Amino acid sequence: MSVVESAAKTFAPRPFLAASKQFSAGADSPRAYLERCLAAISEHEPAVGAFVTTQTEAARKAADAATRPIDGMPVGIKDSIETYDMPTQMGSPLFEGWRGERDAAAVHALRAAGAVIVGKTVTTEFAATHPRGTRNPHDPRRTPGGSSSGSAAAVATGMVPAALGTQVVGSILRPSSFCGVVGFKPTVGAINRGGSHDFLSQSCTGPIAATLEDAWVVAREIARRVGGDPGFPRLAGPMTPPPAKTPRALAMLETPGWPVATAGARQELERAVARLRAAGIAILTRRDTPLVEKVESALANAMPLTRAINEWEWVWPLNDYHRRDASALSESMRERLKSAEAMEEGQYEELIAERARIRAQFAELAAIADAAVTLSAPGAAPLGLGWTGDPIFVVSGSLLGVPTVSLPLLEDEGLPLGLQALGFARRDADLIATAAGIRDAMGSK
Amino acid sequence: MSVVESAAKTFAPRPFLAASKQFSAGADSPRAYLERCLAAISEHEPAVGAFVTTQTEAARKAADAATRPIDGMPVGIKDSIETYDMPTQMGSPLFEGWRGERDAAAVHALRAAGAVIVGKTVTTEFAATHPRGTRNPHDPRRTPGGSSSGSAAAVATGMVPAALGTQVVGSILRPSSFCGVVGFKPTVGAINRGGSHDFLSQSCTGPIAATLEDAWVVAREIARRVGGDPGFPRLAGPMTPPPAKTPRALAMLETPGWPVATAGARQELERAVARLRAAGIAILTRRDTPLVEKVESALANAMPLTRAINEWEWVWPLNDYHRRDASALSESMRERLKSAEAMEEGQYEELIAERARIRAQFAELAAIADAAVTLSAPGAAPLGLGWTGDPIFVVSGSLLGVPTVSLPLLEDEGLPLGLQALGFARRDADLIATAAGIRDAMGSK
Repeated sequence: MSVVESAAKTFAPRPFLAASKQFSAGADSPRAYLERCLAAISEHEPAVGAFVTTQTEAARKAADAATRPIDGMPVGIKDSIETYDMPTQMGSPLFEGWRGERDAAAVHALRAAGAVIVGKTVTTEFAATHPRGTRNPHDPRRTPGGSSSGSAAAVATGMVPAALGTQVVGSILRPSSFCGVVGFKPTVGAINRGGSHDFLSQSCTGPIAATLEDAWVVAREIARRVGGDPGFPRLAGPMTPPPAKTPRALAMLETPGWPVATAGARQELERAVARLRAAGIAILTRRDTPLVEKVESALANAMPLTRAINEWEWVWPLNDYHRRDASALSESMRERLKSAEAMEEGQYEELIAERARIRAQFAELAAIADAAVTLSAPGAAPLGLGWTGDPIFVVSGSLLGVPTVSLPLLEDEGLPLGLQALGFARRDADLIATAAGIRDAMGSK
Repeated sequence: MSVVESAAKTFAPRPFLAASKQFSAGADSPRAYLERCLAAISEHEPAVGAFVTTQTEAARKAADAATRPIDGMPVGIKDSIETYDMPTQMGSPLFEGWRGERDAAAVHALRAAGAVIVGKTVTTEFAATHPRGTRNPHDPRRTPGGSSSGSAAAVATGMVPAALGTQVVGSILRPSSFCGVVGFKPTVGAINRGGSHDFLSQSCTGPIAATLEDAWVVAREIARRVGGDPGFPRLAGPMTPPPAKTPRALAMLETPGWPVATAGARQELERAVARLRAAGIAILTRRDTPLVEKVESALANAMPLTRAINEWEWVWPLNDYHRRDASALSESMRERLKSAEAMEEGQYEELIAERARIRAQFAELAAIADAAVTLSAPGAAPLGLGWTGDPIFVVSGSLLGVPTVSLPLLEDEGLPLGLQALGFARRDADLIATAAGIRDAMGSK
């Protein structure tokens, strides 16, 4: 159960917080750290294709000027999130060369905190399903996952220690699982999405990072400066990473993904559960705990429910993009618009009422478990670049609006696979502490 | 208590639904209706300054092609809401000539319903407080109110039967009151704000119109096609205007505005209340009904609470605009940014929790009253164009997130003044029916 190490592998995620401790001693510097990232970009980008745009000279200037909280931390920004100094092209020919002329809230906050914006990372079309060519660094014949494809691939190869992603179904956790990095989707609303074009009611902005600690500081520095979405509580908690805390009890969820998980993936999860039990953590399953069974039942339709909610919420702007140039939309987006326009009035209100009931059901778990765990994906990244893989294991966290993380602790077919932890709404710091406790209990990875 | 008729007045709001009944008979047509609007624009626009942009030829083509639900209804669009065929300049030099290249959700829906987009109406800077020169048609020395200044002035002068506005404090109801037209702010979230740059948690898109019926169909046709904000129930109800219904009981609210209302305005409200009582409607006041007293107490700080919430929610994008060109921001927006950045972390969460408590308190009123009534403003539009007037009477409805309307039934200093009705969340159609009942009980105005 170690991070995959193939013979050809010459890359690894590049932690930042740990390295930055050397900055003040003069043994390392933001500029030197950045140069290592730029070298990784030179080396791996041709094979991986993680970036749409890079700006090395601006990044060097920013690194040289670094004096603030996450000083000189090089980051990538998913190309559905606006940056004033680079185009925001959203993986769509409709936005080729388009510039919003502003920094999104999260980008503004990152710069203010000292981060160095290295470039824009590849997103699937409009952060949905149609892929845009990034390859999995562990095997270039495989998808890196989506929609935050470039962010996960760039972090996996040490091009940047962290990158922003967005998730409405599985777009942060799935690519993190497939690329062997940490993904963190905060509580819905907890990070200001202003200037991000992933605007649905389940959508979140969140970091993909080399370590849980790096992910936390990125998310927290943003929330400190620009808060959450209007009307929502921000991501709260300490500015430094919450220390690891061994959970007393975890709910082990099979989720609707269990029947499609590979034999290898199931064994990995079972081995992980055994190791957690050995560390003294109680594991509650659907077979031995009625409340877990209730939650599993409530989540049975997480995927079709999420899909229907998202379809309707896309009716605009898809109708406007269709008016502008229908031929510039992928077939999947045209289908989505057609389904949305065929929905009966009033159906959406039933869907979000159902979602609210499922959220309330899940919240009851907090009385008996510190978090829930499951796989992040049914197995390793699938072969082929035409599909970003199945989000069936991560859609539940999106539907629930709870914080979730994917930890690169498992493997399948000799490739990375994530162990997922789901926390409770507005208790993001608790989830990070618990996830660190899980990681440590699993054996230092 | 009649709509003001000064000697010089040569204009009046221009109802659409009533006129459109003649279209099928051939006695009138969308094109002829539009030409009357264009004539009103030629006549009144030089004195009033309601529009930033007009497009008469495109409007003529659209009117000639009209075949859908609100066929050929000429409408104005507040210039903070995106239109693909005209710039969206937001009342800010930072957005001079800026084009979003897309239709906002509400605009897309209006076109799909057959509306004719005549032009973009003047907004204060970023739909906030800094005015942009529109004059009150009833007295050009006075403000038309803001922030939907141009929309109210254009409807008052019959340039268009309806125009879109947005409100986060008082930006639909206040200008409607000052200009003598109908304003309707729906339940928060009930109309999709995609592509509108009034993005705060209390902000709503809503119509300003010649009649309550015109206002309803505009709002309802939008919600039918593009729904509400992601995650919120849409504006529901019949596609045709809900028939007038005489309320059994109304809560008469003084609100924190009472001490600053003019003597004339207070007398007008008292006369209105007397007339409603005479029509058999029970009027509940803070003096005779403990629950009304509780609501009045809960609303005592509606203004400072709303101001603080809005300030924080503006931190982005104001910080980004400031980076871009601080000198292009008004003094008031620069001050707002400074206050936001000085806020203590965690304060915002307390503010929205307090708002939630006030909303719950107000909701209890539904057990004893069909709606609440009060003034829409402390008096007639104030003299001067440097200030858009006091929103103290309408801020409560914004804070509460409930549907509100302003009816042009009162006057002060011989100028228009609105009677405001506040309904209950997600019961917008009930409020429209009640407001029509109030209007009828007041005597056909």
